[in-house]
Amino acid sequence: MRIACYFPAQMDSGPWLEAIKTRMPFQADVEAWHPNSPAADYAVAWQPAQAFFDAQPRLKAIFAAGAGVDALLALKLPEGVPVFRLEDAGMAAQMAEYIAFAALRHYREFDRYEAHAAQGNWVRHPPRPLGDYPVGLLGYGVLGQPVARALQSLGFAVHAWARTQRSPAGLRLFSGSAGLSEFLNATRILVCMLPLTAQTQDIICRKTLEQLKPGAYFINVARGRHVVEDDLLEALNNGQLAGATLDVCRDEPAPAGHPFWNHPKILLTPHIAATTLLDEAVAQIVANIDALERGNEASGRVDRRLGY
Amino acid sequence: MRIACYFPAQMDSGPWLEAIKTRMPFQADVEAWHPNSPAADYAVAWQPAQAFFDAQPRLKAIFAAGAGVDALLALKLPEGVPVFRLEDAGMAAQMAEYIAFAALRHYREFDRYEAHAAQGNWVRHPPRPLGDYPVGLLGYGVLGQPVARALQSLGFAVHAWARTQRSPAGLRLFSGSAGLSEFLNATRILVCMLPLTAQTQDIICRKTLEQLKPGAYFINVARGRHVVEDDLLEALNNGQLAGATLDVCRDEPAPAGHPFWNHPKILLTPHIAATTLLDEAVAQIVANIDALERGNEASGRVDRRLGY
Repeated sequence: MRIACYFPAQMDSGPWLEAIKTRMPFQADVEAWHPNSPAADYAVAWQPAQAFFDAQPRLKAIFAAGAGVDALLALKLPEGVPVFRLEDAGMAAQMAEYIAFAALRHYREFDRYEAHAAQGNWVRHPPRPLGDYPVGLLGYGVLGQPVARALQSLGFAVHAWARTQRSPAGLRLFSGSAGLSEFLNATRILVCMLPLTAQTQDIICRKTLEQLKPGAYFINVARGRHVVEDDLLEALNNGQLAGATLDVCRDEPAPAGHPFWNHPKILLTPHIAATTLLDEAVAQIVANIDALERGNEASGRVDRRLGY
Repeated sequence: MRIACYFPAQMDSGPWLEAIKTRMPFQADVEAWHPNSPAADYAVAWQPAQAFFDAQPRLKAIFAAGAGVDALLALKLPEGVPVFRLEDAGMAAQMAEYIAFAALRHYREFDRYEAHAAQGNWVRHPPRPLGDYPVGLLGYGVLGQPVARALQSLGFAVHAWARTQRSPAGLRLFSGSAGLSEFLNATRILVCMLPLTAQTQDIICRKTLEQLKPGAYFINVARGRHVVEDDLLEALNNGQLAGATLDVCRDEPAPAGHPFWNHPKILLTPHIAATTLLDEAVAQIVANIDALERGNEASGRVDRRLGY
């Protein structure tokens, strides 16, 4: 069995190759792909080039080394080959930490206190009722439930929106385009956790931001292309939004001079909300190859038509 | 029955008097104390003057309108009169929010990312294992358990230190002066939640800070006088401490020019970690007066000798 791995040049791929080799229960050739490599049975890829897939005529499956597959699906992939993405791999806990931090920072006004501190200004604001800061998770996939649980344990009221109707335990789920307005109206702290697809691109725009509770807060841990950046800036500047914590933007790295860097109501971080953790990721990929080789179901399969 | 209330001049005491009157199941005169007021049966006090107690020869009990009673016990109080403090009154949840924010901000390096953002600098740091950031709660009273639970739900390993030996569920408790070193050695994020007493004053000093794991973090939600400020600054400047979030300092309000305001490793907030919430506080005080009038036990009694 041959496993071809593609990682971007700036990434240290050695530990990944080593971990896949070590954990694989079969005899397998695991190698970093180069243009003269023989065709492989399985592909493990992060930010791959088109040439990688053009050289793979007999793949049995493609494994994304991340949760978001928008960049992967933008390529021309071999027809009919199943694509799998990472399902959690330590990312849900990291997402929960990031979102809890951002939600607490806003609701407890630490952003304002930091600004006061810079000026040596001892000013107390009256405490805010936590009930006035309901959190709405836009997107409720495999990462949604642990995030909701962490926020609830801090006392936040949490609800969510998903494309399809379900009845998860422990929170109210709005669904479909009909449920989106109701979801937004009920939300003061909006968290974007959606996959990036043709349907969700540009979903954070004037029309959706206007429907949030006034003085809302926006947290983006998904993709920059979910957001119409000019509309977000307008909502911050006219007061409809009180602030935003953004882990992503349309062009990454954000160029110097991008208006997000120095906006007084924005905290921009360099796409660090949830990092793929090697051990967890390799364990998932190896377990999935093992399942496929035995003729069993593998988990995390992407619906290539839906885009996630 | 007469209830004399003392609140500092800058506080709006009207809603407190109204709430106590409304909720009291007995006929009671509830009034803001002034030097010509008749002697009262019960005192409700926050930051009271000595003159207030000098004019009370026949008190049955004294209720502090806060959790910390160090300022109250520093006065000469009538002998033998029991003192009660607030036990939670909405403060535990607020403390948990504050500490969760500060712990996440440090462990996830949001302080560094904020500094990078100010310079338009897209730099990612490798993720840190959460297991390397055990939280130690110094003081484990009525607020400790909900705080520990909130931190644990975010994945933090939490242990605590208390003066007396107990065996609480769900976390390791060190105790006594013998257990203090072991507690500090096991701690990377130290949270001071102690009452201020003659024994705990100046407890955060070079000797204790040196025993923390290197690159430790300090969060103070207790009192400024727990801390030898010069020792804290020295530990920050020599790298033993990586940072501190301080809600209190020895002189409050912190004067302009205090070294805590602009220190790059310190976030100072104006004593807002946990604010007494009127409804919860009044409910406790009224329930306690009711219990005492019926000859029952009241809760939150302070050991005047121990100081909390």
